[in-house]
Amino acid sequence: MSLIDLSRRVALGIDIGGTNTKFGVVNHRGEVLEKGSIKTDDYETVEEFIDALYEKASPLIENFGGKDSFDGIGVGAPDANYYTGTIDHAPNLPWKGVIRFSDLMTAKFNIPCTITNDANAAAYGEMLFGAARGMKDFIMITLGTGVGSGIVAGGKLIYGHDGFAGELGHTIVKPGGRKHWSTGSEGSLEAYASATGITITAKKMRAEFPESMLNQYPEDAINSKTVHECALKGDAIAIEVFRYTGQKLGEALANFVMFSSPEAILLFGGVIKAGDFILKPAKLHMERNLFPLFRNKVKLVFSELEEADAAILGASALVWEK
Amino acid sequence: MSLIDLSRRVALGIDIGGTNTKFGVVNHRGEVLEKGSIKTDDYETVEEFIDALYEKASPLIENFGGKDSFDGIGVGAPDANYYTGTIDHAPNLPWKGVIRFSDLMTAKFNIPCTITNDANAAAYGEMLFGAARGMKDFIMITLGTGVGSGIVAGGKLIYGHDGFAGELGHTIVKPGGRKHWSTGSEGSLEAYASATGITITAKKMRAEFPESMLNQYPEDAINSKTVHECALKGDAIAIEVFRYTGQKLGEALANFVMFSSPEAILLFGGVIKAGDFILKPAKLHMERNLFPLFRNKVKLVFSELEEADAAILGASALVWEK
Repeated sequence: MSLIDLSRRVALGIDIGGTNTKFGVVNHRGEVLEKGSIKTDDYETVEEFIDALYEKASPLIENFGGKDSFDGIGVGAPDANYYTGTIDHAPNLPWKGVIRFSDLMTAKFNIPCTITNDANAAAYGEMLFGAARGMKDFIMITLGTGVGSGIVAGGKLIYGHDGFAGELGHTIVKPGGRKHWSTGSEGSLEAYASATGITITAKKMRAEFPESMLNQYPEDAINSKTVHECALKGDAIAIEVFRYTGQKLGEALANFVMFSSPEAILLFGGVIKAGDFILKPAKLHMERNLFPLFRNKVKLVFSELEEADAAILGASALVWEK
Repeated sequence: MSLIDLSRRVALGIDIGGTNTKFGVVNHRGEVLEKGSIKTDDYETVEEFIDALYEKASPLIENFGGKDSFDGIGVGAPDANYYTGTIDHAPNLPWKGVIRFSDLMTAKFNIPCTITNDANAAAYGEMLFGAARGMKDFIMITLGTGVGSGIVAGGKLIYGHDGFAGELGHTIVKPGGRKHWSTGSEGSLEAYASATGITITAKKMRAEFPESMLNQYPEDAINSKTVHECALKGDAIAIEVFRYTGQKLGEALANFVMFSSPEAILLFGGVIKAGDFILKPAKLHMERNLFPLFRNKVKLVFSELEEADAAILGASALVWEK
């Protein structure tokens, strides 16, 4: 009985989003054995949030043999820093300032907690269990409300000297271009290729083209989902919204490829529901802007994992990597 | 006598440039014990070049105890690939196609040869013996006839899945901008920030501003050196040539920082002789384009090593890293 049965060791993986927090018990084979969730934005302080998470996760922990069966807790969260264990000034979370998240979790759960940024966790999950299985060099781009990224080079996540590497959504794709609603930068990838950016593009274009189907919706119903509906019905303006978005994305991807020469770029997040409307122009403009040496080599693919699963799996895998 | 005396083990480091090839015997402490050079472009075939290099380097090899004292040969060359040991379609070398350089060298010298691209070799040299000593995350940008780069993340050079990572000179800094004379791409960093790019900018600007001192030179004397002379004399147009170059460089650097969050960016190569004329606007526009999280953190510094020494040291260090 003193032998450790690896097949029964588990980790708790947690994916913290602006609205929902999802968690799961994961084994070494990357199977999510049981799942749960709580609302992120129901809690004004991070302490209340962690108390509620503990309440909800405790029965799962007991189901799998109690805390001694858990090798650790892995967390993916926006603006989380792997080195410091903190969440720093996250604009999309309710808790402000620098939060010592990993310490607070470890103290409450009495299980060691590792934290990293949500896109890094998702990239790690894809490498171990998803579309990037077996790859040592790839870039994951998450196209959601914002644009995030996780970069793997030589089999390792790139953290940079301070833990903040991989903020590709903030790279400038059009100098002097569209002003970002929150950072104030001009022409960032996020200003164009996020769901928020697509909404801005769509509102501009429908104002220019009164004949567009997009004008049949009230102002606050314009978003990447309704643009997709119109594109599917053949509306040329809606199609152009995605083509333009894809072009900006593709131009940015070309630069990323020339940086780290990845085997593949994985796209992930709500925006990829637009499918080929975005993927085809993205591929075209990526290839066009590549130095010839890099052309027709890089796979541009959609994620294979469910969004929450990728982050839960990646976050839990961090536990065993450490 | 069977003990290996590490202090007497050496490597041959070689830096192949378009015009000159420099080599040196290097010890474990990074001391270049003896140096030599041959012309690169005197030899029509790579075999003739390697024969000549062997002729010239053999006396040095004998001086240090013969080939058994050598742990290896390390080579930095344009468009060289660390994984395959080849030099691939180098536009600035006289030998065309894909050259199995490492195999040819190993066969001729009977000493194992490792090869990597020249900017990677220089970055490696800076990490071990130069301005990046002790750093695990930095980017080296070489501003010469072209623009090259070497990226170190987590203490390792980034090679990418195919060995071609770090072609930052070919990243697009101004979409639809200046057409590159050789690659045909539009708006690449190299088109603006290389010595060649500076010459183009200077010729354009002096045509627009007849009062500029730059108009006192014949067309073929306009280059980054003469622009520097005029800038030192206070010519506003020459100063503007460097300011514009620095701006484009700074915009590109901001994107690089948001990719790998380096501790420092090292600038290297002939163009940096322009000093603050380029460095100040580069720093300004880098900071301006950074996501706030990254501002005022990244050191922007000039290389501390002689150009050829950095590459010779870096190339020789590859031998011991392997």
